[in-house]
Amino acid sequence: MSRVYNFSAGPAMLPEEVLQEAAADMMDYHGSGQSVMEMSHRSAEFKAIIETAEQDIRELLDIPDNYQVLFMQGGGNQQFAAVPLNLAQNGVADYILTGQWSKKAAKEAEKYLKVNVIASSADKTFSYIPDCSDLPVSEDADYVYICENNTIYGTKYKTLPNTKGKELVADVSSCFLSEKHDVKKYGVLWGGVQKNVGPAGCAIVIARNDLIREDINPITPVMMNYKITADNHSLYNTPPCYTIYICGLVFQWLKRMGGLDEMKRRNVEKASVLYDYLDGSDFFHGTVTNKEDRSLMNVPFVIGDKDLEKKFIQEAKEASLVNLGGHRTVGGMRASIYNAMPKAGVEKLVDFMEQFEKANR
Amino acid sequence: MSRVYNFSAGPAMLPEEVLQEAAADMMDYHGSGQSVMEMSHRSAEFKAIIETAEQDIRELLDIPDNYQVLFMQGGGNQQFAAVPLNLAQNGVADYILTGQWSKKAAKEAEKYLKVNVIASSADKTFSYIPDCSDLPVSEDADYVYICENNTIYGTKYKTLPNTKGKELVADVSSCFLSEKHDVKKYGVLWGGVQKNVGPAGCAIVIARNDLIREDINPITPVMMNYKITADNHSLYNTPPCYTIYICGLVFQWLKRMGGLDEMKRRNVEKASVLYDYLDGSDFFHGTVTNKEDRSLMNVPFVIGDKDLEKKFIQEAKEASLVNLGGHRTVGGMRASIYNAMPKAGVEKLVDFMEQFEKANR
Repeated sequence: MSRVYNFSAGPAMLPEEVLQEAAADMMDYHGSGQSVMEMSHRSAEFKAIIETAEQDIRELLDIPDNYQVLFMQGGGNQQFAAVPLNLAQNGVADYILTGQWSKKAAKEAEKYLKVNVIASSADKTFSYIPDCSDLPVSEDADYVYICENNTIYGTKYKTLPNTKGKELVADVSSCFLSEKHDVKKYGVLWGGVQKNVGPAGCAIVIARNDLIREDINPITPVMMNYKITADNHSLYNTPPCYTIYICGLVFQWLKRMGGLDEMKRRNVEKASVLYDYLDGSDFFHGTVTNKEDRSLMNVPFVIGDKDLEKKFIQEAKEASLVNLGGHRTVGGMRASIYNAMPKAGVEKLVDFMEQFEKANR
Repeated sequence: MSRVYNFSAGPAMLPEEVLQEAAADMMDYHGSGQSVMEMSHRSAEFKAIIETAEQDIRELLDIPDNYQVLFMQGGGNQQFAAVPLNLAQNGVADYILTGQWSKKAAKEAEKYLKVNVIASSADKTFSYIPDCSDLPVSEDADYVYICENNTIYGTKYKTLPNTKGKELVADVSSCFLSEKHDVKKYGVLWGGVQKNVGPAGCAIVIARNDLIREDINPITPVMMNYKITADNHSLYNTPPCYTIYICGLVFQWLKRMGGLDEMKRRNVEKASVLYDYLDGSDFFHGTVTNKEDRSLMNVPFVIGDKDLEKKFIQEAKEASLVNLGGHRTVGGMRASIYNAMPKAGVEKLVDFMEQFEKANR
């Protein structure tokens, strides 16, 4: 089979150039006589890989000097525990619930501190982002937590919450590097890489120096300790070297593509192709209530007839448009159109939707 | 440069056949039109990969049906916390210290329970394995913990400790799949894969059903919870898919090589080439005190002159024998000769040592 257009929510498409480079490097990375998978994490070769990766992501996101970049193992679920373990001082944190991932984060955090839910869009199946301009932020909150882009429900914060002076912590996994994040507005932001950046098995944490503390909860496992990770430049133990290497290749690809402002332009253009079609169709329906809350990365939609939806997903697959099923907990369809999805893939999807609509309406 | 002989302690050499297969699969895994890195972990393709990997390791190790195989994120350091968090019932555990990794494991465990050190070889820089036939095992110990093969010091338990009826928990990272482990003798054994099995970023935990409990320490992070991992067949969250895929290719390679009894035969033969030479040399010296405690996987040795050692490591590198430096905390030299190191690599090393000895004695 030739390459397909893969609309998976994550792990997801990677740029073909990156995969080709990885394949070419496999037996002998840059004359080292080794694959990156075989390399000592203490070798000069790997040090150059991880240092270049850090420099490149700093450049892509204009990360201020007073923020650290940590490559950590485990994905989002590991950070759900790491955030409260590292940041709790008063033992209270405010969570805004906009989907399953912020719910899971809050549930995990409850093991380590008191969680106050200060806003939620659960009343309408998370189909919108609540107004966060004047929330009842707790006086003693150590941080306010959001999931910035909701992979399952296809919503994204277009304005960050007013945290009334408290630190903002954001899970940016599914919008990571899809556009510039204004890092200085966050205390900590982190993304699991397996959606928009690389293969599963790593989260990149960007944390301001003063939030990387020594005096944290003493039960914090070493592997979740921001301070130990930062002091050792993410090399306290063996990191997921190959995953970091692929992320580094993606960073270089993003720079060649023109950086994150250019990626945003492309992502807006790409998403518009699909949203414009959905807005004009009375057969397919987008599920996000407020248009202004729509994600550029994850586009959920339905027909409203389970059999037709099943048929759609199957026939799309036969047309090399794969993984269009919605999340197993919500059903329907979802097209995840991360950085590596070319515009041609979205255009092919819309063509297919038009044909399917004609044949089945 | 052509491929080198890489004596790194981990990440380490992988079989060339495995790397070639990975490179060939990179753009299109088995007609799926996707790289394994891009695949949804909920896809039929990935399910087949992880299920086949589990079946193959079960076959290689004759894992009894009442043991679960868990693919977990994080390496050894994650398990240092996961073991006490999952196994503590009385809140006491016995540790035997035979090197840095068991020391680190004990230190991490102290966050979660009372650690009793019941034996140690620290008195002679961990150059031997203590007699473990009649240890003062604690009456209320939840388990007795060992690091079975000591990567840094080159020792290995040839007889498992007499735990007097308590559960044995073993970190087998650096001898994992180098020979058969008699699984039923352990309550839990686990290995970080980055030494003998695959790329960094995963530990494989083999645990007996009755030790995979629901009523564990409530502060246990989800990502360290054996029960949640087992109930979800290692797919509670996105696992390190590509790492698991490479491990699976290594399992298939091991089966093609004839299984673990044959690997042991080869590993004994390979190690003998180096140990026989060391025993006959008065220039190079193995550092393990008791010959019977020598590891088949990690062979530390010294000349006794730091400048000559530095020269040796540099000239070896120029001869395509790389990563022969000892662990940064102990110095000297170390040759790690895992499954994927061919006998020819060890023979070339010994030839080089002979020449170096002649030129520098």
